Amino acid sequence: MAASNSPSVVDIARNARLASTELQSVTGATKSMALKHIQAALLEHKATIIAANRKDKEASAGAEVDAGRLSASLFKRLDIEGANEEKFMTMVEGVADVDKLEDPTGRVSLATKLDEQLEMYRVACPVGVLLVIFEARPEVAVNISALAIKSGNAVILKGGKEATHTLQALNACLREALNGLSAEHRIPADAIQLVSRREEIAKLLDQDKYIDMVIPRGSNALVRHIQNNTRIPVLGHADGLCSIFIDATADVKKSIDIVLDAKLSYPAACNAVETLLVHADAAERVLPSLGAALFAQQVQLRADAATLAHLPTPSEPHLLQAIVDADDDTEFLDAVLSVRVVASLADAIAHINAHGSKHTDAIITEDKDNAELFMTQVDAAGVYWNASTRFADGFRYGFGTEIGVSTNKTHARGPVGLEGLVIYKYRMYGNGQASAAYGVGEGKRRYLHEAIPLETCANRFRK
Amino acid sequence: MAASNSPSVVDIARNARLASTELQSVTGATKSMALKHIQAALLEHKATIIAANRKDKEASAGAEVDAGRLSASLFKRLDIEGANEEKFMTMVEGVADVDKLEDPTGRVSLATKLDEQLEMYRVACPVGVLLVIFEARPEVAVNISALAIKSGNAVILKGGKEATHTLQALNACLREALNGLSAEHRIPADAIQLVSRREEIAKLLDQDKYIDMVIPRGSNALVRHIQNNTRIPVLGHADGLCSIFIDATADVKKSIDIVLDAKLSYPAACNAVETLLVHADAAERVLPSLGAALFAQQVQLRADAATLAHLPTPSEPHLLQAIVDADDDTEFLDAVLSVRVVASLADAIAHINAHGSKHTDAIITEDKDNAELFMTQVDAAGVYWNASTRFADGFRYGFGTEIGVSTNKTHARGPVGLEGLVIYKYRMYGNGQASAAYGVGEGKRRYLHEAIPLETCANRFRK
Repeated sequence: MAASNSPSVVDIARNARLASTELQSVTGATKSMALKHIQAALLEHKATIIAANRKDKEASAGAEVDAGRLSASLFKRLDIEGANEEKFMTMVEGVADVDKLEDPTGRVSLATKLDEQLEMYRVACPVGVLLVIFEARPEVAVNISALAIKSGNAVILKGGKEATHTLQALNACLREALNGLSAEHRIPADAIQLVSRREEIAKLLDQDKYIDMVIPRGSNALVRHIQNNTRIPVLGHADGLCSIFIDATADVKKSIDIVLDAKLSYPAACNAVETLLVHADAAERVLPSLGAALFAQQVQLRADAATLAHLPTPSEPHLLQAIVDADDDTEFLDAVLSVRVVASLADAIAHINAHGSKHTDAIITEDKDNAELFMTQVDAAGVYWNASTRFADGFRYGFGTEIGVSTNKTHARGPVGLEGLVIYKYRMYGNGQASAAYGVGEGKRRYLHEAIPLETCANRFRK
Repeated sequence: MAASNSPSVVDIARNARLASTELQSVTGATKSMALKHIQAALLEHKATIIAANRKDKEASAGAEVDAGRLSASLFKRLDIEGANEEKFMTMVEGVADVDKLEDPTGRVSLATKLDEQLEMYRVACPVGVLLVIFEARPEVAVNISALAIKSGNAVILKGGKEATHTLQALNACLREALNGLSAEHRIPADAIQLVSRREEIAKLLDQDKYIDMVIPRGSNALVRHIQNNTRIPVLGHADGLCSIFIDATADVKKSIDIVLDAKLSYPAACNAVETLLVHADAAERVLPSLGAALFAQQVQLRADAATLAHLPTPSEPHLLQAIVDADDDTEFLDAVLSVRVVASLADAIAHINAHGSKHTDAIITEDKDNAELFMTQVDAAGVYWNASTRFADGFRYGFGTEIGVSTNKTHARGPVGLEGLVIYKYRMYGNGQASAAYGVGEGKRRYLHEAIPLETCANRFRK
């Protein structure tokens, strides 16, 4: 498990591309074998990995103390061990979970007979080469590698420098696992590569010739920096500014249950609520008890004048502030919530479409038509009726795992599982046909364009 | 049909975004009504449109003469009339054809019961706001507008300045058609907006807050300029460098039929072949007759030494040139073809993945295993066995129409029809659920994650 020589960024990207060509052919059995090898290698080298992780934690704690502060959360994010090795075991089990998921490649989504002996199939295939840039949590390297192998993609991993030793130990382990595959179940070791130096990010973001997709996992600032500095498609989200609209007919108990969960079950999450809009006709009925419940949980409200008129006085004055315009565009990531009264459903939709981040927005109402209109016109990856925005998550959606949550309007949106890591290609099977033989004139052949039933070719491209 | 005032680019983009909110709710009946209004308006104002088009053609012819040249092809691309108004009528019929296509919105691709009274549906919806930048051919404005309306997207059109008068006449017509809809079948007129000044392109490419997708239709230089100058996802392709590999077992007649069609049926098309690779074991058998057939059709070959050894001498010496490295990366868009002999299938795949543009590549072989490996490992939107690359086209694929051909590795790939203009959203139907109630601990609810059969909800979101 010695550290390897350092190839250039262009070499790394080119090698990933070459590995991805082989990965296009890899069978499901080989993928499964590779994921089992990875689990075994992690368990075999557990002591080495945990020792490396302790080195990182000590260095980080030292640096934090030198800087005159102590960040328990950074320390916790760096930790790969847990009190009783349970974090390590969860990481290993995560690889087994990915192994159990359905292979997303080889699915046929369209099959057409253009003519006798001229058939076309649209078949799911790996995107190619992924670049994943993440901060702190080093176990992400293992999770992403498992997803990349399962989906047939090569991956370049760039982690945080605080986790350098842990990541090197994990990477050596992953390479060893791939190198240990038999010739029959070969996956090139360059399918997973680690980049460790920060200054290499800019060069990687320039390799659009070799890299097909960038997946940033980290702070809003990191994501925005990447979005602004590459031509490669970026899958992910910078902001998670989720809103909840309490409609005129909203049920008070549902409103309290949902808003408290959406704000408090994990305030730093991207799917936590940041903005509450209340229909004017519901303000008097809902705001007094909802406000009291939020204040009791130490949530600070940034309220407009119409809201203030209906809120109780909090025991601690700092919990109630007047809203300023910037609050409409702020992801607080804390126990803070902006609240406005709006005159109509249309105003709520307009507010959310203007200020939201297209992540997940909810309406609380007993009026089905209003719910449907809200869900149709709000432009977001998730639109919920009478449910907490915190459900926006790959595990909760039943995807088994997620590579991230996307607020993109193209490719993949919302929590993204293995399906977001594949694209398709059109495979055409002919018998020497020339296109000029087809057309509307005399003696020209006509296209049949007959649908081939998908059930007859569902397994044709499964490997 | 007077020209409207000129709103700012930001106003145009914001108005398109506002129109797109309403478009999310528009029914199939309203879309169909709008497309019929557009056909009627085009026919009603035919004389005005044709007069405007003649003005553009005269101005263009004048400018060309002033510049000391005459370009028949520019004149032809500008022309909207045809010898007998047949081009105009084809444009109108194109709108009727789009009307007949299936509505791509409202399709359910995933439905899951997370828990009792907590159901999730993944439903196709419009992307939002499209920016289409095209050159010369003014009828593209009508075709794209029809596709935008059918898919529920707002569109901003930026055409070539040579077609200014034609485009203004067409745009007035399209707005009149939308404004003429009854209140019951309303579509905001800002669903279709025209931008005429070239200097506005840069500002539009900056409006990622309001614009979701850019579709460039024009020269490679135009597309590359756009790709390099916007954060908005770009759907399309700059290059169309398609290759054909003639394998060891290739049939000679199929090779000649396919290569001649792929090179000559429309040499300037993006799906024409530019590079021919020949397996060393097929060179002696295929190259003499294939070379003779190509020379007979005045195709110039840029050949490597191994190819030269098997080619006949052309009657005109300029038809045979020695290949230079740059030819491997050149889209000739003309009756020119580069030819190399390669040692193996693997070398052919590596060459295509290194030099191709991921558009469409074909293998000619009688060996099924080789064909499947080629189709699996070549990284392109279209991979063909024994068929001409020229089949890569939305009409030929049976899509009815196409918005363009994409060489992207994300979202939509290959010829893109209406499906490429939609994305999806997750609609969650709850009854007041909080996420914190679910988990593995005592007293926690478990997710059901039961699949809801798609046939039970196929029409639930159809409008």
